[in-house]
Amino acid sequence: MYLLGIDPGLATTGFAIVRTEASRKPHIEQYGIIKTPAGLSLGERLVMIRADLVELLEKYTPEHVGIEEVFFGKNVTTAMHVSHARGVIVEECARRGMPIAEFNPMQVKLRITGDGRADKKQVQSILGIEFGLQFASKHDDAADAIAIALCLMHSLRTSNL
Amino acid sequence: MYLLGIDPGLATTGFAIVRTEASRKPHIEQYGIIKTPAGLSLGERLVMIRADLVELLEKYTPEHVGIEEVFFGKNVTTAMHVSHARGVIVEECARRGMPIAEFNPMQVKLRITGDGRADKKQVQSILGIEFGLQFASKHDDAADAIAIALCLMHSLRTSNL
Repeated sequence: MYLLGIDPGLATTGFAIVRTEASRKPHIEQYGIIKTPAGLSLGERLVMIRADLVELLEKYTPEHVGIEEVFFGKNVTTAMHVSHARGVIVEECARRGMPIAEFNPMQVKLRITGDGRADKKQVQSILGIEFGLQFASKHDDAADAIAIALCLMHSLRTSNL
Repeated sequence: MYLLGIDPGLATTGFAIVRTEASRKPHIEQYGIIKTPAGLSLGERLVMIRADLVELLEKYTPEHVGIEEVFFGKNVTTAMHVSHARGVIVEECARRGMPIAEFNPMQVKLRITGDGRADKKQVQSILGIEFGLQFASKHDDAADAIAIALCLMHSLRTSNL
Protein backbone atom coordinates (compact mmCIF):
# COMPACT_ATOMS: atom_id res chain seq x y z
CA MET A 1 0.00 0.00 0.00
CA TYR A 2 0.98 3.60 -0.49
CA LEU A 3 1.26 6.20 2.24
CA LEU A 4 1.43 9.94 1.60
CA GLY A 5 3.43 12.26 3.82
CA ILE A 6 2.83 16.00 3.55
CA ASP A 7 4.74 18.97 4.97
CA PRO A 8 2.30 21.73 4.05
CA GLY A 9 3.16 25.30 3.07
CA LEU A 10 1.86 28.05 0.81
CA ALA A 11 5.21 28.66 -0.91
CA THR A 12 6.51 25.09 -0.65
CA THR A 13 4.65 21.90 0.19
CA GLY A 14 6.81 18.81 0.60
CA PHE A 15 5.33 15.46 -0.32
CA ALA A 16 6.48 11.84 -0.19
CA ILE A 17 4.90 8.62 -1.34
CA VAL A 18 6.12 5.58 0.58
CA ARG A 19 5.24 2.04 -0.48
CA THR A 20 5.00 -0.45 2.35
CA GLU A 21 4.59 -4.17 2.31
CA ALA A 22 4.38 -6.44 5.34
CA SER A 23 7.81 -7.41 6.70
CA ARG A 24 9.64 -5.59 3.92
CA LYS A 25 11.67 -2.42 4.04
CA PRO A 26 9.56 0.56 2.98
CA HIS A 27 10.32 2.01 -0.44
CA ILE A 28 10.39 5.77 -1.08
CA GLU A 29 8.40 5.74 -4.31
CA GLN A 30 8.38 9.47 -5.07
CA TYR A 31 9.16 12.66 -3.22
CA GLY A 32 9.41 16.32 -4.06
CA ILE A 33 7.94 19.74 -3.52
CA ILE A 34 5.00 21.72 -4.83
CA LYS A 35 6.27 25.28 -5.26
CA THR A 36 4.01 28.29 -5.87
CA PRO A 37 5.36 31.69 -7.00
CA ALA A 38 5.05 34.56 -4.49
CA GLY A 39 3.78 36.82 -7.30
CA LEU A 40 0.50 34.92 -7.64
CA SER A 41 -2.62 35.65 -5.62
CA LEU A 42 -3.48 33.50 -2.60
CA GLY A 43 -6.28 31.87 -4.61
CA GLU A 44 -4.02 31.04 -7.56
CA ARG A 45 -1.43 29.50 -5.26
CA LEU A 46 -4.00 27.35 -3.48
CA VAL A 47 -5.40 26.19 -6.82
CA MET A 48 -1.89 25.11 -7.87
CA ILE A 49 -1.34 23.19 -4.63
CA ARG A 50 -4.64 21.37 -4.95
CA ALA A 51 -4.09 20.52 -8.62
CA ASP A 52 -0.65 19.01 -7.93
CA LEU A 53 -1.99 17.13 -4.90
CA VAL A 54 -4.88 15.70 -6.93
CA GLU A 55 -2.39 14.42 -9.50
CA LEU A 56 -0.49 12.57 -6.75
CA LEU A 57 -3.66 11.20 -5.17
CA GLU A 58 -4.93 9.92 -8.51
CA LYS A 59 -1.57 8.38 -9.42
CA TYR A 60 -1.10 6.45 -6.16
CA THR A 61 -4.43 6.42 -4.26
CA PRO A 62 -2.61 6.37 -0.89
CA GLU A 63 -4.47 4.48 1.84
CA HIS A 64 -3.36 6.81 4.63
CA VAL A 65 -2.14 10.39 4.74
CA GLY A 66 0.17 11.90 7.34
CA ILE A 67 0.42 15.67 7.60
CA GLU A 68 2.49 17.92 9.81
CA GLU A 69 0.72 20.08 12.38
CA VAL A 70 1.19 23.82 12.03
CA PHE A 71 4.04 25.16 14.11
CA PHE A 72 3.42 28.80 15.02
CA GLY A 73 6.39 29.45 17.26
CA LYS A 74 8.19 31.74 14.88
CA ASN A 75 5.86 33.74 12.70
CA VAL A 76 2.08 33.98 12.94
CA THR A 77 1.71 35.22 9.35
CA THR A 78 3.62 32.20 8.04
CA ALA A 79 1.54 29.89 10.24
CA MET A 80 -1.60 31.44 8.77
CA HIS A 81 -0.35 30.90 5.22
CA VAL A 82 0.54 27.31 6.03
CA SER A 83 -2.95 26.82 7.48
CA HIS A 84 -4.61 28.01 4.25
CA ALA A 85 -2.62 25.47 2.22
CA ARG A 86 -3.16 22.79 4.86
CA GLY A 87 -6.93 23.34 4.81
CA VAL A 88 -7.03 22.72 1.05
CA ILE A 89 -4.90 19.57 1.40
CA VAL A 90 -6.82 18.10 4.34
CA GLU A 91 -10.17 18.80 2.66
CA GLU A 92 -9.13 17.15 -0.60
CA CYS A 93 -7.89 14.00 1.17
CA ALA A 94 -10.91 13.84 3.51
CA ARG A 95 -13.35 14.21 0.62
CA ARG A 96 -11.73 11.15 -0.96
CA GLY A 97 -12.22 9.24 2.29
CA MET A 98 -8.51 9.00 3.06
CA PRO A 99 -7.76 8.73 6.81
CA ILE A 100 -5.53 11.63 7.88
CA ALA A 101 -3.11 11.48 10.79
CA GLU A 102 -1.51 14.63 12.16
CA PHE A 103 1.99 14.68 13.60
CA ASN A 104 3.87 17.49 15.26
CA PRO A 105 7.53 18.09 14.37
CA MET A 106 8.73 16.74 17.72
CA GLN A 107 6.90 13.41 17.23
CA VAL A 108 8.40 13.05 13.76
CA LYS A 109 11.95 13.81 14.93
CA LEU A 110 11.59 11.49 17.89
CA ARG A 111 10.36 8.66 15.67
CA ILE A 112 13.12 9.04 13.07
CA THR A 113 16.14 9.96 15.20
CA GLY A 114 15.13 8.97 18.72
CA ASP A 115 15.50 12.61 19.75
CA GLY A 116 12.50 14.98 19.64
CA ARG A 117 14.81 17.96 19.48
CA ALA A 118 16.98 16.71 16.59
CA ASP A 119 17.65 19.23 13.81
CA LYS A 120 16.86 18.85 10.09
CA LYS A 121 20.38 17.69 9.29
CA GLN A 122 20.16 14.79 11.75
CA VAL A 123 16.80 13.70 10.32
CA GLN A 124 18.15 13.92 6.77
CA SER A 125 21.33 12.10 7.68
CA ILE A 126 19.31 9.15 9.00
CA LEU A 127 17.04 9.12 5.93
CA GLY A 128 20.21 9.23 3.82
CA ILE A 129 21.77 6.21 5.56
CA GLU A 130 18.49 4.26 5.56
CA PHE A 131 17.41 4.90 1.99
CA GLY A 132 20.52 6.15 0.18
CA LEU A 133 18.98 9.58 -0.34
CA GLN A 134 20.87 12.85 -0.50
CA PHE A 135 19.09 16.12 0.21
CA ALA A 136 20.11 19.56 -1.01
CA SER A 137 18.91 22.32 1.34
CA LYS A 138 16.14 23.16 -1.15
CA HIS A 139 14.74 19.71 -0.44
CA ASP A 140 14.19 20.28 3.29
CA ASP A 141 10.41 20.12 2.87
CA ALA A 142 10.57 16.93 0.82
CA ALA A 143 12.80 15.34 3.47
CA ASP A 144 10.30 16.39 6.15
CA ALA A 145 7.51 14.79 4.13
CA ILE A 146 9.46 11.51 3.90
CA ALA A 147 9.98 11.61 7.67
CA ILE A 148 6.25 12.18 8.19
CA ALA A 149 5.33 9.28 5.88
CA LEU A 150 7.71 6.99 7.79
CA CYS A 151 6.32 8.21 11.10
CA LEU A 152 2.83 7.39 9.79
CA MET A 153 4.01 3.92 8.74
CA HIS A 154 5.39 3.21 12.21
CA SER A 155 2.19 4.45 13.84
CA LEU A 156 0.11 2.15 11.63
CA ARG A 157 2.35 -0.83 12.40
CA THR A 158 2.23 -0.22 16.13
CA SER A 159 -1.53 0.25 15.86
CA ASN A 160 -1.48 3.75 17.23
CA LEU A 161 -3.82 4.68 14.40
CA MET B 1 -25.23 40.60 -10.64
CA TYR B 2 -24.65 38.63 -7.44
CA LEU B 3 -21.91 39.27 -4.91
CA LEU B 4 -20.90 36.82 -2.21
CA GLY B 5 -19.66 37.97 1.19
CA ILE B 6 -17.94 35.44 3.45
CA ASP B 7 -16.94 35.62 7.10
CA PRO B 8 -14.90 32.42 7.32
CA GLY B 9 -14.61 30.10 10.31
CA LEU B 10 -14.18 26.40 11.03
CA ALA B 11 -17.14 26.21 13.45
CA THR B 12 -19.26 28.90 11.77
CA THR B 13 -18.87 30.51 8.37
CA GLY B 14 -21.19 33.41 7.65
CA PHE B 15 -22.31 33.97 4.07
CA ALA B 16 -24.41 36.56 2.25
CA ILE B 17 -25.55 36.85 -1.34
CA VAL B 18 -26.28 40.42 -2.39
CA ARG B 19 -27.92 41.26 -5.71
CA THR B 20 -26.88 44.58 -7.17
CA GLU B 21 -28.20 46.46 -10.16
CA ALA B 22 -26.97 49.82 -11.41
CA SER B 23 -28.56 52.78 -9.58
CA ARG B 24 -30.78 50.50 -7.52
CA LYS B 25 -30.66 49.67 -3.88
CA PRO B 26 -28.85 46.38 -3.29
CA HIS B 27 -31.00 43.41 -2.32
CA ILE B 28 -29.95 40.90 0.34
CA GLU B 29 -30.90 37.75 -1.55
CA GLN B 30 -29.86 35.14 1.00
CA TYR B 31 -27.77 35.01 4.15
CA GLY B 32 -26.95 32.49 6.80
CA ILE B 33 -24.28 30.39 8.39
CA ILE B 34 -22.52 27.12 7.63
CA LYS B 35 -22.11 25.36 10.97
CA THR B 36 -19.88 22.34 11.54
CA PRO B 37 -20.05 20.19 14.70
CA ALA B 38 -16.99 20.28 16.97
CA GLY B 39 -17.13 16.49 17.28
CA LEU B 40 -16.17 15.93 13.65
CA SER B 41 -12.59 15.69 12.43
CA LEU B 42 -10.91 18.70 10.82
CA GLY B 43 -11.22 17.02 7.42
CA GLU B 44 -14.93 16.26 7.83
CA ARG B 45 -15.62 19.85 8.86
CA LEU B 46 -13.73 21.27 5.88
CA VAL B 47 -15.60 18.90 3.53
CA MET B 48 -18.91 20.21 4.93
CA ILE B 49 -17.87 23.83 4.47
CA ARG B 50 -16.81 23.23 0.88
CA ALA B 51 -19.97 21.29 0.01
CA ASP B 52 -22.25 24.04 1.33
CA LEU B 53 -20.17 26.72 -0.40
CA VAL B 54 -20.34 24.84 -3.72
CA GLU B 55 -24.14 24.73 -3.41
CA LEU B 56 -24.23 28.53 -3.01
CA LEU B 57 -21.78 29.12 -5.86
CA GLU B 58 -23.78 26.89 -8.19
CA LYS B 59 -27.08 28.47 -7.23
CA TYR B 60 -25.99 32.10 -7.75
CA THR B 61 -22.69 32.10 -9.68
CA PRO B 62 -21.55 35.30 -7.93
CA GLU B 63 -19.36 37.55 -10.08
CA HIS B 64 -17.22 38.74 -7.17
CA VAL B 65 -16.41 37.36 -3.75
CA GLY B 66 -15.46 39.37 -0.67
CA ILE B 67 -13.88 37.57 2.27
CA GLU B 68 -12.73 38.78 5.66
CA GLU B 69 -9.03 38.70 6.46
CA VAL B 70 -8.00 36.56 9.42
CA PHE B 71 -7.77 38.50 12.64
CA PHE B 72 -5.28 36.89 15.01
CA GLY B 73 -5.32 39.37 17.84
CA LYS B 74 -7.12 37.13 20.27
CA ASN B 75 -6.31 33.49 19.82
CA VAL B 76 -3.73 31.98 17.51
CA THR B 77 -5.40 28.55 17.55
CA THR B 78 -8.70 30.06 16.43
CA ALA B 79 -6.91 32.06 13.73
CA MET B 80 -5.31 28.85 12.51
CA HIS B 81 -8.69 27.09 12.36
CA VAL B 82 -10.19 30.04 10.49
CA SER B 83 -7.28 29.90 8.04
CA HIS B 84 -7.91 26.22 7.26
CA ALA B 85 -11.55 27.00 6.40
CA ARG B 86 -10.57 30.17 4.55
CA GLY B 87 -8.05 28.27 2.42
CA VAL B 88 -10.76 25.84 1.28
CA ILE B 89 -13.16 28.71 0.48
CA VAL B 90 -10.61 30.86 -1.37
CA GLU B 91 -9.38 27.86 -3.40
CA GLU B 92 -12.90 26.85 -4.45
CA CYS B 93 -13.77 30.39 -5.59
CA ALA B 94 -10.41 30.93 -7.34
CA ARG B 95 -10.68 27.62 -9.20
CA ARG B 96 -14.03 28.84 -10.59
CA GLY B 97 -12.34 32.05 -11.77
CA MET B 98 -14.20 34.28 -9.31
CA PRO B 99 -12.25 37.43 -8.36
CA ILE B 100 -11.70 37.52 -4.59
CA ALA B 101 -11.32 40.72 -2.58
CA GLU B 102 -10.06 40.61 0.99
CA PHE B 103 -11.21 43.08 3.64
CA ASN B 104 -10.10 43.50 7.20
CA PRO B 105 -12.68 44.02 9.95
CA MET B 106 -11.73 47.70 10.33
CA GLN B 107 -12.34 48.43 6.62
CA VAL B 108 -15.73 46.75 6.80
CA LYS B 109 -16.81 48.64 9.92
CA LEU B 110 -15.56 51.93 8.49
CA ARG B 111 -17.48 51.38 5.25
CA ILE B 112 -20.76 50.43 6.92
CA THR B 113 -20.80 52.73 9.98
CA GLY B 114 -18.22 55.40 9.18
CA ASP B 115 -16.24 54.27 12.22
CA GLY B 116 -13.50 51.62 11.90
CA ARG B 117 -13.78 50.82 15.59
CA ALA B 118 -17.57 50.33 15.65
CA ASP B 119 -18.82 47.21 17.44
CA LYS B 120 -20.96 44.39 16.02
CA LYS B 121 -24.15 45.92 17.42
CA GLN B 122 -23.58 49.21 15.59
CA VAL B 123 -22.93 47.40 12.30
CA GLN B 124 -26.05 45.26 12.78
CA SER B 125 -28.15 48.25 13.73
CA ILE B 126 -27.25 50.01 10.46
CA LEU B 127 -27.92 46.86 8.42
CA GLY B 128 -31.24 46.60 10.26
CA ILE B 129 -32.28 50.15 9.42
CA GLU B 130 -31.07 49.90 5.81
CA PHE B 131 -32.53 46.50 4.94
CA GLY B 132 -35.13 45.82 7.61
CA LEU B 133 -33.14 42.90 8.99
CA GLN B 134 -33.03 41.76 12.58
CA PHE B 135 -30.14 39.72 13.87
CA ALA B 136 -30.16 37.36 16.83
CA SER B 137 -26.72 37.01 18.41
CA LYS B 138 -26.32 33.61 16.77
CA HIS B 139 -26.41 35.45 13.43
CA ASP B 140 -23.33 37.59 14.11
CA ASP B 141 -21.36 35.82 11.40
CA ALA B 142 -24.17 36.17 8.86
CA ALA B 143 -24.40 39.89 9.65
CA ASP B 144 -20.64 40.20 9.18
CA ALA B 145 -20.95 38.47 5.82
CA ILE B 146 -23.65 40.93 4.70
CA ALA B 147 -21.41 43.82 5.77
CA ILE B 148 -18.52 42.32 3.77
CA ALA B 149 -20.70 41.88 0.67
CA LEU B 150 -21.83 45.53 0.92
CA CYS B 151 -18.24 46.64 1.44
CA LEU B 152 -17.32 44.73 -1.72
CA MET B 153 -20.18 46.38 -3.62
CA HIS B 154 -18.99 49.86 -2.61
CA SER B 155 -15.43 49.00 -3.60
CA LEU B 156 -16.58 47.82 -7.03
CA ARG B 157 -18.68 50.97 -7.53
CA THR B 158 -15.85 53.27 -6.57
CA SER B 159 -13.50 51.24 -8.78
CA ASN B 160 -11.18 50.33 -5.98
CA LEU B 161 -11.25 46.83 -7.41
